[in-house]
Amino acid sequence: METSVLKSKLQSYRELALKGINHYVPKSEPRKHLYDLVMDYPSRGGKGFRPGLCISTCKAWGGNEETAINSATALELFHNAFLVHDDIEDGSEFRRNKPTMHEYNNIGIAINVGDAMNVLSIKPLMMNINILGPELTWQIFSEIEHMVRQSVEGQAMELGWRKENSKCLTEDDYLRMILKKTCWYTTIHPIRIGAIIGSKGKVNPDMFNRFGFFMGTAFQIQDDVLNLIADEKAYGKEIGGDILEGKRTLMLIDLIQKLKGSNKSKLINYLANCRNENQLDNASWVLDKMHEHGCIEYARKVSKHMAGAALKEFYTCFQNVEDSEDKDMIEALIMHMISRDY
Amino acid sequence: METSVLKSKLQSYRELALKGINHYVPKSEPRKHLYDLVMDYPSRGGKGFRPGLCISTCKAWGGNEETAINSATALELFHNAFLVHDDIEDGSEFRRNKPTMHEYNNIGIAINVGDAMNVLSIKPLMMNINILGPELTWQIFSEIEHMVRQSVEGQAMELGWRKENSKCLTEDDYLRMILKKTCWYTTIHPIRIGAIIGSKGKVNPDMFNRFGFFMGTAFQIQDDVLNLIADEKAYGKEIGGDILEGKRTLMLIDLIQKLKGSNKSKLINYLANCRNENQLDNASWVLDKMHEHGCIEYARKVSKHMAGAALKEFYTCFQNVEDSEDKDMIEALIMHMISRDY
Repeated sequence: METSVLKSKLQSYRELALKGINHYVPKSEPRKHLYDLVMDYPSRGGKGFRPGLCISTCKAWGGNEETAINSATALELFHNAFLVHDDIEDGSEFRRNKPTMHEYNNIGIAINVGDAMNVLSIKPLMMNINILGPELTWQIFSEIEHMVRQSVEGQAMELGWRKENSKCLTEDDYLRMILKKTCWYTTIHPIRIGAIIGSKGKVNPDMFNRFGFFMGTAFQIQDDVLNLIADEKAYGKEIGGDILEGKRTLMLIDLIQKLKGSNKSKLINYLANCRNENQLDNASWVLDKMHEHGCIEYARKVSKHMAGAALKEFYTCFQNVEDSEDKDMIEALIMHMISRDY
Repeated sequence: METSVLKSKLQSYRELALKGINHYVPKSEPRKHLYDLVMDYPSRGGKGFRPGLCISTCKAWGGNEETAINSATALELFHNAFLVHDDIEDGSEFRRNKPTMHEYNNIGIAINVGDAMNVLSIKPLMMNINILGPELTWQIFSEIEHMVRQSVEGQAMELGWRKENSKCLTEDDYLRMILKKTCWYTTIHPIRIGAIIGSKGKVNPDMFNRFGFFMGTAFQIQDDVLNLIADEKAYGKEIGGDILEGKRTLMLIDLIQKLKGSNKSKLINYLANCRNENQLDNASWVLDKMHEHGCIEYARKVSKHMAGAALKEFYTCFQNVEDSEDKDMIEALIMHMISRDY
């Protein structure tokens, strides 16, 4: 599938979810400090991976759009709620080319808006009962409960590493963290939920776990790479923000392992202080060292391997599913996740 | 019912909820930056009003403890999640005689712990299905969805007033805000859910709304009064913290209306700056003026009137319910809410 076709399909599924969000956000007061803000992040755009994966998997497995929209809506709302809180937790300044919510408003209101987005996600999930019946509705609730719990666990791991200034992390630690923080809610559960709906509960969703894990990992590593080398405008966040925040990316873990002697001490010292002082010079030194030691190249290689593994799993999981545009879309999405520049 | 008997019954119901929380919090990693912290606030004690109201109403309406424990557990978890986020939003330093979570840890981790507590509340609500069947389980889900949505709406109103430095609020505004922020989740929904479970879905829960509103309002005003005049140790928070935060309490709204001329300007000026600078001297001036103009006395009077109205509603709502220790407990709780000193 051509990238332009893929993008326009993703866009159309994202718009269905956005319409869903708009439908479920109350039109009543309080607007200025709550419901207007709830619409902010979803309206800024976004790639639409989660609703895209959910709806396309549903259709590939024999379902139709209408049956997946409520769940795709909830996934997109949860995702945006997560972003609002994540931006505070990371001290991020930009999201999709605009100031983050706590930056242009305040932390208190932004926390509350994130909480509101989480609770608003419950309604579309409850409304599933009219379309999917009680059994599938209940099963999707379980999926969501697991998804959100895994996300907060992954977030706790990452925040804990930064708080403790962890210096002895391995690639395995990183993969375990992004399985929890990224994969369950970006790929695994959207695919599982789509397949549950499309197959009317006939499929065992566990068969997609490996596929989703490889795909989500490829996605996250590419995302971390883009944070270092993308065109700022296309990417929509401050380039190098991850280094300023001391975020434990694969590149950083690789660099800690590769540096020796005084350079290693300098890096450790930087990590201990990176959130306290103006460390712009030191941050660009860290980036230089990553380039010098091939850390970014290494991460891209891992990301590509993961995408390859995801592709192999895709052919296994989807082998008995009839060919369709949506099946093609999922296949194309795998490689797109590592070739995208935004 | 003697106060000591009431307190010990409240305590025993709170312990059931605490046992429930302990049961539903995973024993797995990550512990240090997540699940150990989830247990922190619930373990610090607390009055147990929410599980107390839920379980006692359930029993008064013919149910038993076992059928209400999952819901009481979820209510207590949601409440503590709300406290963790509320403490950040208010910049509060103490909760139940110990530093607030974001103070002894950091804001990022505290936000994530609150999110975790919210998601952990879903499990006990889902487990209701084995005890209450699908219909009541589903009805309680609806109750919870409404409860949390009302809470974030009330929180948005209050945070908005402080952000905008609102100076023209009336008593009606205050009552509308605490209906949303306090009453639904402290009194109305615990009572509604208890009655739904106890009556096996036969009661129309709307009949308790007025009762819960009056009771919750009496509770909240007393809470705000205690913030100004309680013994700090018994109360467990910094006395006068509400004034330092510029919180729009009934006393403050009353004082804004009563002050004239230069005193009024001084108060308005204080409110515009109260969170920016060290304003301890000015805060005690505000407290003095509240005493001088009878604002605290006035608030206590409103709180007493509300408790009286709650009592009247109680006799109406519970008139056809057989006498029992739990029915007595609810009656005693109404007056206790305004006479308590913690």
